[in-house]
Amino acid sequence: MTETVISSATKEIVIGFDRPFCVIGERINPTGRKKLAAEMKEGDYSTVEADALAQVAAGATMLDVNAGIPLADEPKILAETIQLVQSLVDVPLSIDSSIIEALEAGIAVYKGRPLINSVTGEEEVLERVLPLIKKYDCAVVAISNDETGISEDPDVRFDVAKKIVDRAHDYGIKPCDVVVDPLVMPIGAMGTAGRQVFALLHRLKNELQVNSTCGASNISFGVPNRHVLNAHFLSMAAGAGMTSAIMNPLHEEEMAGVMAANVLNGVDKDCRKWLTRYRDPAPAGGEAAGREGRRRRRRA
Amino acid sequence: MTETVISSATKEIVIGFDRPFCVIGERINPTGRKKLAAEMKEGDYSTVEADALAQVAAGATMLDVNAGIPLADEPKILAETIQLVQSLVDVPLSIDSSIIEALEAGIAVYKGRPLINSVTGEEEVLERVLPLIKKYDCAVVAISNDETGISEDPDVRFDVAKKIVDRAHDYGIKPCDVVVDPLVMPIGAMGTAGRQVFALLHRLKNELQVNSTCGASNISFGVPNRHVLNAHFLSMAAGAGMTSAIMNPLHEEEMAGVMAANVLNGVDKDCRKWLTRYRDPAPAGGEAAGREGRRRRRRA
Repeated sequence: MTETVISSATKEIVIGFDRPFCVIGERINPTGRKKLAAEMKEGDYSTVEADALAQVAAGATMLDVNAGIPLADEPKILAETIQLVQSLVDVPLSIDSSIIEALEAGIAVYKGRPLINSVTGEEEVLERVLPLIKKYDCAVVAISNDETGISEDPDVRFDVAKKIVDRAHDYGIKPCDVVVDPLVMPIGAMGTAGRQVFALLHRLKNELQVNSTCGASNISFGVPNRHVLNAHFLSMAAGAGMTSAIMNPLHEEEMAGVMAANVLNGVDKDCRKWLTRYRDPAPAGGEAAGREGRRRRRRA
Repeated sequence: MTETVISSATKEIVIGFDRPFCVIGERINPTGRKKLAAEMKEGDYSTVEADALAQVAAGATMLDVNAGIPLADEPKILAETIQLVQSLVDVPLSIDSSIIEALEAGIAVYKGRPLINSVTGEEEVLERVLPLIKKYDCAVVAISNDETGISEDPDVRFDVAKKIVDRAHDYGIKPCDVVVDPLVMPIGAMGTAGRQVFALLHRLKNELQVNSTCGASNISFGVPNRHVLNAHFLSMAAGAGMTSAIMNPLHEEEMAGVMAANVLNGVDKDCRKWLTRYRDPAPAGGEAAGREGRRRRRRA
């Protein structure tokens, strides 16, 4: 059974096929957020603080922390952000950077066992990131692209994922510590994007037997009613075998999709989380009996 | 390729794996609707009329028509209802009765090629219904229970479905004209109900290669926030291979789930139906760039 164990100083979470879907809060990321980028560059972490608390309150299982700000001291800012977030919330973190020195600075101050976001199938990246994962005994997000870019052929993306898992194994990193991102394309630009990812997720679960994640909102880029489309992408992907996603837990539709998938995949025991969240004073079963409940005995 | 062709006098629809999900409107059914039952018994079809028009306006692909009223002349009422509905709307119908004489009366007045709802794996039922399907060249819903009731073991339910498909074949009915209902149990009573159905749908698609349907709302019986749970059940089931459902098209959440599944399964070409339904004046892509869109090139 594939289980990816991630922890903070006081809390351990497990990503796995028989576990509730792991919601990785995406908000602490200055990319595309000018105000947040300016604040973090100045050492003002008030928005980071608010985002950390709000995401955990909304049900995030983990938080992704990114400090990618052009012309800033990313290693220093990332380390400071991680220390602050860990002082505020107990959920484990995903340390997110494209700079190896920033990853190292983040790992150095991190309390627990982090998820490192990310490695790709590019040779240079593999050779820099995997030794770090092994040295500090972390788990890692493996993005299924390589030097040739992101293939539109899902079989090629699978092969890249397999290459990363194999290479990690060569470094002594177990497959359960590699969480594959199959890469989600915008459905508005590529009509097969959903089917591709679902097929890939099946193979990642059944052939590679690895956990998976993705940047979920990418599916709906450029399309209206994004939150509802994201929500159904999340539940359908969870049905196809996806075990986590980097997403915004502050959106009610997406979180309802994740919670519904947990119920329907049988990993929300006795529907407890669903009942706690949605139980209301009106009798729930009062509206209409189910079809099978109403089905009369065949009389003729 | 499995294609179930259903038609009215003027409109043909196809149920299939590469087709938009087939929404079978469930409203014209007096079971559990006292007022409607009383009206239909008196020959007052005003509610039937309103329900037919509203469901088609809401996007139903087909309508189920049921006239099961205790101590009433069901064959006569079903035939009258079908004639009325066919005079009002052009979508094909599912003729729904547990009484063989009512099915025959319905088929006799029906214009086009109907879906007959239903046959089970019970010997007596098979022997009564299948000759009718063959005689009138209809398609049929096959419910995967038999004399022993509804098995909690999905493998037994699969075997019952297979028995019905095989038996239909003996009568000269093609597998593409058998639409299997794997039976949906309430998730509140049986936590494995979702996983069971998804696993069954995979087998129905890949092993038996037949279309499928179900009474979707049964999944959420007794659980709060039913429409959202139904909606995610529908999209996840569509992802697992379900090609139609008997459902209420008047509920926005459920219809959004079906439409999202069509987008994500790549059967809503160029997202046209989604765009038509949800396009609004605000720029759709303006909210936030997708994760992969924002991903910086690895710099170190």
